Order: sequence, then C-alpha cells, then structure tokens
Amino acid sequence: MEPRKVNLSEKFAAFDDYWNPRIVGALNGQYVKLARLKGDFVWHQHENEDELFLVIEGTLHIELADETLVLNPGEFGIIPRGTLHRPKAPEEVKVLLFEPQSTLNTGNLENELTKKNLDRI
Amino acid sequence: MEPRKVNLSEKFAAFDDYWNPRIVGALNGQYVKLARLKGDFVWHQHENEDELFLVIEGTLHIELADETLVLNPGEFGIIPRGTLHRPKAPEEVKVLLFEPQSTLNTGNLENELTKKNLDRI
Repeated sequence: MEPRKVNLSEKFAAFDDYWNPRIVGALNGQYVKLARLKGDFVWHQHENEDELFLVIEGTLHIELADETLVLNPGEFGIIPRGTLHRPKAPEEVKVLLFEPQSTLNTGNLENELTKKNLDRI
Repeated sequence: MEPRKVNLSEKFAAFDDYWNPRIVGALNGQYVKLARLKGDFVWHQHENEDELFLVIEGTLHIELADETLVLNPGEFGIIPRGTLHRPKAPEEVKVLLFEPQSTLNTGNLENELTKKNLDRI
C-alpha cells in the first residue's frame, strides 16, 4: 500500500448521486467513504459494525429510538453496532464515513437501497 | 456503548499542548483522536498500524523517504504500516487521527515524546 493523499472536495466533485457511498481510503480493515445524502433513509442497524458519520457540509439528522443526533459541519456521530438508526437529510449533506470494510449501507436489510461493490474513487 | 456526538471545535478548545493526542471516539477497535501539532516530530514508523491524518486547521507536512505529503484543511493522508514518516507543522495544525487503539504516537520508538494512557475527552 502506498501513502495516499485525498482532497475531500475533489472527491465529492466526482459524483452527485445520493445514498451511494464511494470508497476514498482503506486502512486497518476499515474504509473511509464519502456520501451525499438527501431525504430520508431507512431504519436499519449494523449487527457487527460501529459507524462514524463526520459531517463536511449540511446538517445530518440521525434518528435513534429515543433521540435524534443533529450533526453540523465539524461534528461527528458514532452509532454503535446493534443500534437502530435512520439518517435524514432535509437538505443535501456531504458526509465522511469510517466503518469496517464489511459494512453494508442498509445494515441488516437488503433492498433497493442496498449498495454493494462500492466504487473506489 | 452509547451513541455519541462530538463537536471538534469544543474538543480542541479543551486542550492546548502539542503532540499530545486526545481520544474523542472509539469504534471497531480504532480510536478517533485529536491533536494540536507544531514544530517537527521525529522520524518513526508503526509496525502494525496504518494511520490517517485529517487536517482540520493549518497545513501539515508529512515527510516520507522520497516525498512530502502537504495536507491542508479538508485533506487527509494515509500512512501505511511500515512507512517511515515525520510529521512537521511549521505553524500550528489541528488534526484528526484515525488509527487502531494499539497505536503509539512515536511508533517503533519510545522516548520523551512518547505519550501513553492518552486522556479521553
């Protein structure tokens, strides 16, 4: 593996679809992903993976069973494995994700929103 | 583990010393750390850990054997395990680190710069 430098703005400029994360880095069995989010996602959980959302632009709401995390740029949230959650983005959000390479975007669900074989950009 | 929200500015405001990372999140056996850097660090490598540096403020130089990564805010670098590197910060830099919990700041070296039992803030 070679040392790698990544400019987030350049990577975000390379795609414009929502809820379709791109891989921009790999380390220690984890991926760094970027995603554009807009609208409501589905309630789901990850059985074996904790998930980190770092907001780069916009405001991300992560609904939990009994509260909602509201994340603005420069804020991150960690959703532990086994925690039901639903990301919501009333307006477009750009987010950086850190999570194990095994993580599926829809967690325990597999449906039309599920993205496999993510592009690496 | 509970869901956790972290505001980077608030956490950076909680300390002002250099080269002394604080833990601000844990997930999947990894830590999210914040550090303020200024001046030259030491050449070192991590035998078993890849390391990610995401620059929040300032300009971080990471010297490698045959090149230097120059990272500005919104840019990250990944230094693979076994890669000799030296972080340098001519002016103060605020950086977010993502690395395995086992990672020692000075890697293969243990000296007066080595920080163990990092504070969790």
